[in-house]
Amino acid sequence: MPAPPQFIKYVDDNANGFIQRLAKAVQIPSVSGDASYRKHVFEMATFLEGELQAVGAQVKRVPLGKQVLDGQEIDLPPALLASIGNDPKKKTILCYGHYDVQPALKSDGWDTEPFQLVVNEKTGQLIGRGSTDDKGPVLGWINILEAHKKLGLELPVNLKFCFEGMEESGSEGLDDLIKSEVGKGKFFDGVEAICISDNYWLNTRTPCLTYGLRGISYYNVTIRGPAKDLHSGAFGRTVHEPMTDLIHIMSRLVTPQGKILIPGVEDLVAPLVTGEKERYDALDYSIQDVEAAVGAPIALSDDKATVLMGRMREPSLSLHGIEGAFSAAGAKTVIPAKVSGKFSIRLVPNQTPDNIDPLVISYIQSEFKKLGSKNTLIIENLHGGKPWMADPTHWNYVAATKATEAIYNKKPDLTREGGSIPVTLTFAESLGVNVLLLPMGRGDDGAHSFNEKLDRSNYIEGTKLLGTYLYEVGSI
Amino acid sequence: MPAPPQFIKYVDDNANGFIQRLAKAVQIPSVSGDASYRKHVFEMATFLEGELQAVGAQVKRVPLGKQVLDGQEIDLPPALLASIGNDPKKKTILCYGHYDVQPALKSDGWDTEPFQLVVNEKTGQLIGRGSTDDKGPVLGWINILEAHKKLGLELPVNLKFCFEGMEESGSEGLDDLIKSEVGKGKFFDGVEAICISDNYWLNTRTPCLTYGLRGISYYNVTIRGPAKDLHSGAFGRTVHEPMTDLIHIMSRLVTPQGKILIPGVEDLVAPLVTGEKERYDALDYSIQDVEAAVGAPIALSDDKATVLMGRMREPSLSLHGIEGAFSAAGAKTVIPAKVSGKFSIRLVPNQTPDNIDPLVISYIQSEFKKLGSKNTLIIENLHGGKPWMADPTHWNYVAATKATEAIYNKKPDLTREGGSIPVTLTFAESLGVNVLLLPMGRGDDGAHSFNEKLDRSNYIEGTKLLGTYLYEVGSI
Ligand SMILES: [Zn+2]
Ligand SMILES: [Zn+2]
Ligand SMILES: [Zn+2]
Ligand SMILES: [Zn+2]
Repeated sequence: MPAPPQFIKYVDDNANGFIQRLAKAVQIPSVSGDASYRKHVFEMATFLEGELQAVGAQVKRVPLGKQVLDGQEIDLPPALLASIGNDPKKKTILCYGHYDVQPALKSDGWDTEPFQLVVNEKTGQLIGRGSTDDKGPVLGWINILEAHKKLGLELPVNLKFCFEGMEESGSEGLDDLIKSEVGKGKFFDGVEAICISDNYWLNTRTPCLTYGLRGISYYNVTIRGPAKDLHSGAFGRTVHEPMTDLIHIMSRLVTPQGKILIPGVEDLVAPLVTGEKERYDALDYSIQDVEAAVGAPIALSDDKATVLMGRMREPSLSLHGIEGAFSAAGAKTVIPAKVSGKFSIRLVPNQTPDNIDPLVISYIQSEFKKLGSKNTLIIENLHGGKPWMADPTHWNYVAATKATEAIYNKKPDLTREGGSIPVTLTFAESLGVNVLLLPMGRGDDGAHSFNEKLDRSNYIEGTKLLGTYLYEVGSI
Repeated sequence: MPAPPQFIKYVDDNANGFIQRLAKAVQIPSVSGDASYRKHVFEMATFLEGELQAVGAQVKRVPLGKQVLDGQEIDLPPALLASIGNDPKKKTILCYGHYDVQPALKSDGWDTEPFQLVVNEKTGQLIGRGSTDDKGPVLGWINILEAHKKLGLELPVNLKFCFEGMEESGSEGLDDLIKSEVGKGKFFDGVEAICISDNYWLNTRTPCLTYGLRGISYYNVTIRGPAKDLHSGAFGRTVHEPMTDLIHIMSRLVTPQGKILIPGVEDLVAPLVTGEKERYDALDYSIQDVEAAVGAPIALSDDKATVLMGRMREPSLSLHGIEGAFSAAGAKTVIPAKVSGKFSIRLVPNQTPDNIDPLVISYIQSEFKKLGSKNTLIIENLHGGKPWMADPTHWNYVAATKATEAIYNKKPDLTREGGSIPVTLTFAESLGVNVLLLPMGRGDDGAHSFNEKLDRSNYIEGTKLLGTYLYEVGSI
């Protein structure tokens, strides 16, 4: 069932008010990664709590304890657990979002003040930190509640909200809260599906639903040789040099074409099923899109499906850098004493840090042995997370598909993403229900970059989309 | 002819005065690499000028122009060109040294104040920045002149001195001065051999004469891919990653055993001549010495001569680091957009930057082509210098050998060093005479490190050694 026409009309008629709401939110610099901004994250929690209460939600503000940041112990921002409706005849949907943002300074390259929402009337862009990540989508839900309250409309589902203020800083404290609120009589009791709006379309044209995310396993390979840095004049060709060993090992991890050389790692990838490649062919995407996004003609293949599968359903191994080696400008003639190579593998089903770690460690150990070096090797896993994949034929996705068709007159692309949103997996595993990623913004929004924006039409049509999704869920 | 006994006695009797002279010099923090210390480099020039004049030398203070350092244009420290004696029946020897020092802060790890000479009566060490590099040796010459003046002794040779204040910062301005002072009636006119005391024994036991230095060719290999850094989640296995390409190229330059893989580079090394390996076998050195110096059991070979030849008569290729990649602590999931690998090759006869550069460049270009990458490659040579080798059978070396035997009762080791002292080559090529490196300090003096020291006995016996060398030259 599509949303009632008066809801759609209300959103159109009140678009300017919704933009004002977003402007108020953007003005609060709720940067979670900098202790000196922490008071603003709390200010943002209070703002959001007030907005939720004003539109009829019951809000529980849950303290998450303390953390040490920039050398000081400070309070974590609270999670806001809100709910509205408790009708046993209706479905219950949980919506997740975050009210903290990435850091932003005008000097990073912004054309405007990052914490003042600028409406560019020409392009239709709403420019400001947090506009698309994730204040726009979070306020989308508030806009929907406002419309229903003002119109005296009944909501088609029972709603629960979980909004956090630490997503950009590792969601500290949230996993424990989620796990503690699962079970009979607890906050998440009765949730039948989850909707997260914190990602983006694949491109700038076609809405999408996202049903998979890659996991990650991040490694630090340290080679230690002399007791201190040496001068290459005095000691070059005298001792085993840690950098030479490390570079040899790093060169044996992945080919320039992206194939992972660690035996067994690619074997764990779930095989392509019949018709799967065709699904990637059908996505609204092109090699030009990827090359425009990265700013250079460097796609790994000329075949669109190959490139998309590389990002969505295959593991990738990236070499991030080396700690302890010479890294400045200029020409220093040092033999570094101890160097640590950093690399990570993005994981896809059926890979997990648990089944990948032993393959990585034993391969590096055996390659190191082959070098015949007298230096010392240490391998560490710095962090890891499993990949996540949902069933895209679940009613949660069916509802979102119908809603997209109703608002955008387009079938949404069904995508998987290359990065991780760890809370997705926590929700899926802790609550045991289907999770849907239903993005509001476009692929070029620049979430963590300067000049972050959300298109006016994505904010307004996105509010309609989220509302319509609830009606489609309600009538399934 | 050995030095007259009254000279030797004078040095012994006045050892404390010589140490006081060194203490005064160490107290002037003449750090050439830091603009805020430049006034002290000038202060040191004035101190040295006064010392030279007091012992009878004529001193010309030569301004070397200006430089830009730490963003300010400042005057270069002057070169001091001094001379004493002009007897056409005597040989004329040029002595080079430098009066500037490396930076030093107590917090670098010093046990004592770096700019106060501390005499450790137990170990006999004179500890302080510049004690061994190069204030001790420079003052050694002054001590000799003082002794002759006080004793009313005639010098056995005509002496010229060239002391500079920029050695630790690339000897800026000196090459031009040297070239401009060559020729009939110019300062260097008549110089028949050169003695430089600015290096160290191979070990802590046996004096040495050094007749060779390696050259260098320093390269920067840049791979440029996307227009900006990418997130490895969003783009891993989508595009050609510059780090992957660079690591593959860097891994093809040198083996973990130190063999250079660039075709042609090792072919240019002058072949071992009959009996040459035996010369290395005969040097007072051991694998334990090298492993004690680096603080770990990581020598490339168990054969002493092999290790010494690796340092002295073979080229080495060291990978110094990467600019533009992630280099901090932690776990950043970046795909760096542009990375520059730094490496250098230490050159030995008959290698020169001119014959090595084309081999390096064409090899890297062809290896890069093999990678099949769409990224862009740029290779630069950041700086270079030819190797230097003198004839160790020249009378200059014969004199130094006799002097060493007279003072230390030992035949000196004949060594080559792995690093470069570029002024050596400039003198050798500009003046066309034999250059001798005659060190005062020991291999563990820690010239550029914290707790730099010169052993009291090396300072005092070294003063005798330099004086005796002049007598041996005078009687050849
Ligand atoms: Zn987000
Ligand atoms: Zn974000
Ligand atoms: Zn020096
Ligand atoms: Zn030095």
